[in-house]
Amino acid sequence: MCRFILYRGAETLMYPLLYDAENGLVAQSKNAQKRKKPLNADGFGLGWYTGHGDPEPATFVNVDPAWSNRNLAMIAGKVPTRHFFAHVRDASVGMPVSQANCHPFSFGRYLFMHNGRLDRFDSFKRALQKELSDEAFGLIEGNTDSEHAFALFMDTLGFKTECTPQQMEQALLHTIEKIMWLRQRAGADTNAFINFAVSDGEHMLATRFNSDHSVQPASLFMAHGVTICNQDGFKLKRAKAGETAAAMICSEPLTAQKSLWQKVERNHLVRSLPDGSLEQVPLALPQQADLRRYW
Amino acid sequence: MCRFILYRGAETLMYPLLYDAENGLVAQSKNAQKRKKPLNADGFGLGWYTGHGDPEPATFVNVDPAWSNRNLAMIAGKVPTRHFFAHVRDASVGMPVSQANCHPFSFGRYLFMHNGRLDRFDSFKRALQKELSDEAFGLIEGNTDSEHAFALFMDTLGFKTECTPQQMEQALLHTIEKIMWLRQRAGADTNAFINFAVSDGEHMLATRFNSDHSVQPASLFMAHGVTICNQDGFKLKRAKAGETAAAMICSEPLTAQKSLWQKVERNHLVRSLPDGSLEQVPLALPQQADLRRYW
Amino acid sequence: MCRFILYRGAETLMYPLLYDAENGLVAQSKNAQKRKKPLNADGFGLGWYTGHGDPEPATFVNVDPAWSNRNLAMIAGKVPTRHFFAHVRDASVGMPVSQANCHPFSFGRYLFMHNGRLDRFDSFKRALQKELSDEAFGLIEGNTDSEHAFALFMDTLGFKTECTPQQMEQALLHTIEKIMWLRQRAGADTNAFINFAVSDGEHMLATRFNSDHSVQPASLFMAHGVTICNQDGFKLKRAKAGETAAAMICSEPLTAQKSLWQKVERNHLVRSLPDGSLEQVPLALPQQADLRRYW
Amino acid sequence: MCRFILYRGAETLMYPLLYDAENGLVAQSKNAQKRKKPLNADGFGLGWYTGHGDPEPATFVNVDPAWSNRNLAMIAGKVPTRHFFAHVRDASVGMPVSQANCHPFSFGRYLFMHNGRLDRFDSFKRALQKELSDEAFGLIEGNTDSEHAFALFMDTLGFKTECTPQQMEQALLHTIEKIMWLRQRAGADTNAFINFAVSDGEHMLATRFNSDHSVQPASLFMAHGVTICNQDGFKLKRAKAGETAAAMICSEPLTAQKSLWQKVERNHLVRSLPDGSLEQVPLALPQQADLRRYW
Repeated sequence: MCRFILYRGAETLMYPLLYDAENGLVAQSKNAQKRKKPLNADGFGLGWYTGHGDPEPATFVNVDPAWSNRNLAMIAGKVPTRHFFAHVRDASVGMPVSQANCHPFSFGRYLFMHNGRLDRFDSFKRALQKELSDEAFGLIEGNTDSEHAFALFMDTLGFKTECTPQQMEQALLHTIEKIMWLRQRAGADTNAFINFAVSDGEHMLATRFNSDHSVQPASLFMAHGVTICNQDGFKLKRAKAGETAAAMICSEPLTAQKSLWQKVERNHLVRSLPDGSLEQVPLALPQQADLRRYW
Repeated sequence: MCRFILYRGAETLMYPLLYDAENGLVAQSKNAQKRKKPLNADGFGLGWYTGHGDPEPATFVNVDPAWSNRNLAMIAGKVPTRHFFAHVRDASVGMPVSQANCHPFSFGRYLFMHNGRLDRFDSFKRALQKELSDEAFGLIEGNTDSEHAFALFMDTLGFKTECTPQQMEQALLHTIEKIMWLRQRAGADTNAFINFAVSDGEHMLATRFNSDHSVQPASLFMAHGVTICNQDGFKLKRAKAGETAAAMICSEPLTAQKSLWQKVERNHLVRSLPDGSLEQVPLALPQQADLRRYW
Repeated sequence: MCRFILYRGAETLMYPLLYDAENGLVAQSKNAQKRKKPLNADGFGLGWYTGHGDPEPATFVNVDPAWSNRNLAMIAGKVPTRHFFAHVRDASVGMPVSQANCHPFSFGRYLFMHNGRLDRFDSFKRALQKELSDEAFGLIEGNTDSEHAFALFMDTLGFKTECTPQQMEQALLHTIEKIMWLRQRAGADTNAFINFAVSDGEHMLATRFNSDHSVQPASLFMAHGVTICNQDGFKLKRAKAGETAAAMICSEPLTAQKSLWQKVERNHLVRSLPDGSLEQVPLALPQQADLRRYW
Repeated sequence: MCRFILYRGAETLMYPLLYDAENGLVAQSKNAQKRKKPLNADGFGLGWYTGHGDPEPATFVNVDPAWSNRNLAMIAGKVPTRHFFAHVRDASVGMPVSQANCHPFSFGRYLFMHNGRLDRFDSFKRALQKELSDEAFGLIEGNTDSEHAFALFMDTLGFKTECTPQQMEQALLHTIEKIMWLRQRAGADTNAFINFAVSDGEHMLATRFNSDHSVQPASLFMAHGVTICNQDGFKLKRAKAGETAAAMICSEPLTAQKSLWQKVERNHLVRSLPDGSLEQVPLALPQQADLRRYW
C-alpha cells in the first residue's frame, strides 16, 4: 500500500523530510504509523524537478529498503530542489519487487505515484491495456496496477507536453473513472484504494479515495504555509510574511505538530493553488450509472 | 543476442561447463568467440532438473554479469544434475536488464531460453499478446521478445502437463510460424534470429534459424556420445561402451576439440533421441504463403 | 540482532522451515515474535551440506529482504539436504548491508553464523585483527563483528580440516573467551550478545549467551526427535521408532506446538549428539580473572 | 585496472562526457581503447561537487555495469556541476564487486579514485593497516588496495579539513612513497600501477606512474582551455576569450580530436592551476634508498 510525500516550496534538500523528521519517509519505510502493516520495504523512489531550466524531472529508484540504500541518503542530502516526490513501496501480491515497479513514474514533465491497490487487477489488466494507445502501452515497463494507471492518465491527458491545472485535474478524474468502469465491467467489486499523486512541475494534485465505503481509504495529510526548520531536529513553522512557504501532501504527518497538519477527507482531492497553498475539494466522481459514457 | 548451453547426460556439477572449460559460458559472458559483439553481461540464468522426483525444474537468475556473481559459482559448484540449461544475456534495446528478463523461463516441467532477437518486436508485441490465452498472458513478468515467445509456446502446447517429444517439437515449430506470421502482418521484414531451446525434463530441442537468408543465424554447436573429464582442465572424451554419455547443445564449442563438436546447420533443429544422442534435421517451416492458416 | 535456524536430520527441502511454518524464518524476517524490533530485512543466507560426498557446504546469500528474493524461494524449494543453516539479518550500525556481511560464513567444511551484537566492536576491532593469523585475516571480506568472530574461531580451531566434536566445542568456547578478553581490555563493558552457531557438517553447536546479566540474551529454542509433516500446513510430530528424526535449533519456535519446543537457558550451549538428539549444558566460561591467560 | 574522468570548469551535466562522447566513459566500460582488456564492468561511481555552498561532494556508486544502470543515466543527465569525478571499475582478483569497493572514495571535501593495481596487495595489506590511525582505519569499508591508499592519503594529509594545493600534492606524493616502502619491505617487487586522482573541490591532481619501468603505466590524457559542444555529437572546442573553459584528465581521450588531447607522460603528475589550466610535471619520487625515512 506504500507511503509517499509531495513537496513544493522553498528550495530544500530532500534529506530532512526523509531522514530527519520524526516520522520521515525512511522511518515510515520501517514502521509506518497509519497503516496496519507498518512495512514499506519493497523499494523506493525519488522524483525531483531540477529547477535549472529543464522541465523534465529526474527520478531515482531502487529495490532495496529505503533505510539501507547509501545512494538514497547521498542524493537526498546533496541535491536541492523546489519540488519533489518521494515514495516507499509495499509490494502487492503478483507485482514483484523490481526497479520498473518502483514509483514515481515519469514521462515528459509529469511525475505520478500511487499509494493504494486496485483489487483484482488481473481481472481487468488486459481490458485496460486494450484501452491504451500504442504510445501509452509503450510506457509500461513493469507490471503494477499503478504504472498502468499512469499510462491511462497520460492517454487521458492526450500526452500533452504542457497543460493547464484544470486539464491535469480533469485527466486525473477521468483516469479514476475509467478504472472504476474497467473494474465494474470485470466484476471486480472489492475495494480499490486510489491515492494518486501527479505533478507537471508546477501544479500538484493528490487524491484520497477508495471504492468501498465501508472501510477507510489510505491515510493522507497536508500542510501548507509552513517553513522547514531543521536546527534542533526537524520542525515545521508557520511561514512569516515574505518567506517562501512550503506545501506538503504526505501519507502521514512527518511531525507530531497536530495544528500544522490537516487531514485530507475521504474521497477528496488536494490541489496546489497559484499562491503556493493547498485546498481540498470533494472528488467529483460520477455515479456508477454515468460510467456508461465509456462504453 | 546471448549465449547458452543445454546439457543432458551423466550427473554432473554445472561448474565445469561454466567456469573450467576453456570457452565455458562464463568466459563467453566476457568474451564470446562466435559473435561480433563479445559481451553477454546483462544477467544470467540457470535452470536444472533436480532428479529427485520433482519434475519441475529449479531456476536461478540474476542481473549481474555471470563472472562476478558469487552465488552462481556456488550453486554451479554444489548442485548436481543430469539435465540443465544455462544462459548469459546480452540485452536488446528496449528490453532492460532485470530479473524478469533473464532466461531460462519456466512453467511446470518446461524450460525455455532464447539466443537471438526478434527485430522490431514493438511493432507486433500487442498483436502477439492478443493471441495469448489469459493463462499464457499471465506468465509474462518482463518485457522481452523471448518471454513472449515462451508464452506463445506454452499456449501452442496447450499448457499440457506432459507431452510427447513430437508434440513439443510441433509446438515449437508452430510458435516460430506464429511469430513469422505476426511479423509479416506487422511489416517487420528485417531479421529475426531464432535460436530457441526447450525441454520437458526428458527431451531437449534447439533451433538455429533466422528469417533473413542473406546473413548467418546465431551460431550453434552440439556434441554427444561424450563424457566430461575435468582432471587437468576441462576436456571431452568419447564415451566408452557402458559409460553414461552426455549430450550438449551450445552457442559455441566449450573446447577446441574440433572433432567432437558438430556445427548445427542454418535453419535446422536439434533433437535429443531416446538413446541420449542428438540429431539435427532441417527446420520444416512452411512457406510464407502457408502462414495464412493463422489468419 | 538477526534470527536463524539450524537443521539436521532426515533429508528435507529448506522451503517448509522458511516459508510454510507459521513462524518460519521468512515470517521472522518481517515480523519476528521474540525480539523487540521485529524486522530482519538486511539480507539473508543459506548454508547447506550437499550430502553427495562433498564435505564442504554451499552457501547462498543476498542483500534483499528474504521475503522478496525469488532465488531464495527457488533454492529452498528445490535443493534437498540433511543439514542446513539459514539466517535473516538485522544489520547493526556501522556494518552495512552487503553480501560479504551476510551469514552464514564458511570455510572448508565449517559453517558459522551469529545472532547478536558485540557492542562497541569498533573499540576492539583492530586488537582482534592483530590476534589473527594471516590465514584467518585473509578470510574476512566484510566488516561485521560476526565475521571477525568466525575468523577468530577458525584460528582457535587451528584451521583443522577435520576435528572432533570436543575440539570444535572447545574452539567455540575459547573464541567467546577471547572476545570477552578483547572487550575487557578495550573497556567495552556494555553488552555482548553471543548466540553463535557452528557446524562441521556432522555436529552442530549453538550458544545462548550475553555478557550483561541484567538483561536477557537473544532468544533460542530447540526441538529434536521430531519429524516434519507438511500436509495441511507445517507441523512437527514426535518421531516414531525407526523414523529418521530431525533436530532444530532456532531463534524462535517455528510452530506454536509448545510441548515440542524447548527453551535454551541463558548462558547455555546446545550440542547435537551422535544419536541425532540435542542437549543443552551451561556455558563453562571462565571468570573474568581467568581471562588473563590470554595476556 | 579501471578507467576514469576528472572534470573541472564551466557548469555541465555529466551525461555528455559519459554517454555522448564517442569514447565516453560508458563506452569505455564496455570497450576501452587504451587497455588490453577492454572491459570495465565491475561497478561504477560518480563524485561531484554540488556548487551550492556545500564543500563536501556527493557520491553515487553501484555494482552494475555502467551501461545498464538507469539511475546513472538519470543522475548524469539531471545534476549540473562544475567539478566531478567518474569511474568505471575492472575488479582485481580478490577484491570483489561490491558497493564499498567502488570509486570514488570520499571524506569531508576530498574525492579520491584509482586506476591501477598494487600487485601483491595481500603481502602488505596488514602492514599498511598498521600504519593507519584509528580514524583512517575507520574509513575503510571494503577491501581494495585503492581504498586503503585513500585511507593512507587522509592520514598523510593529517585529516586536514582544508589544505593548500601544495599540501595536497605533498600528501599524495608521500602516500605513493609509503606504498612503495611498504611494498619494498614486503618483498612485493612486481608492478604497482598508480594512477591516482584527488581533489579538494578546488584543485585536482592525478598521477601516471608505475613501479616497473619495463612496461608502460596505465594510460592518462588531459585537455584544457576547452569548451564542450554537444550540438551534433560531443566535441571539444578551444575556449574563446571570456568563455569559462574546462579542464579534463581522463584515462583515455573522449574524442578523436588529437590536437586537443595531450598525453600525460609516464611518471608524471598533473595539477590544475588557479587559471583553470593543467600542467604536468615529473613525479618527484625519492630514490628507493630514501624510503628509509619511513623506517
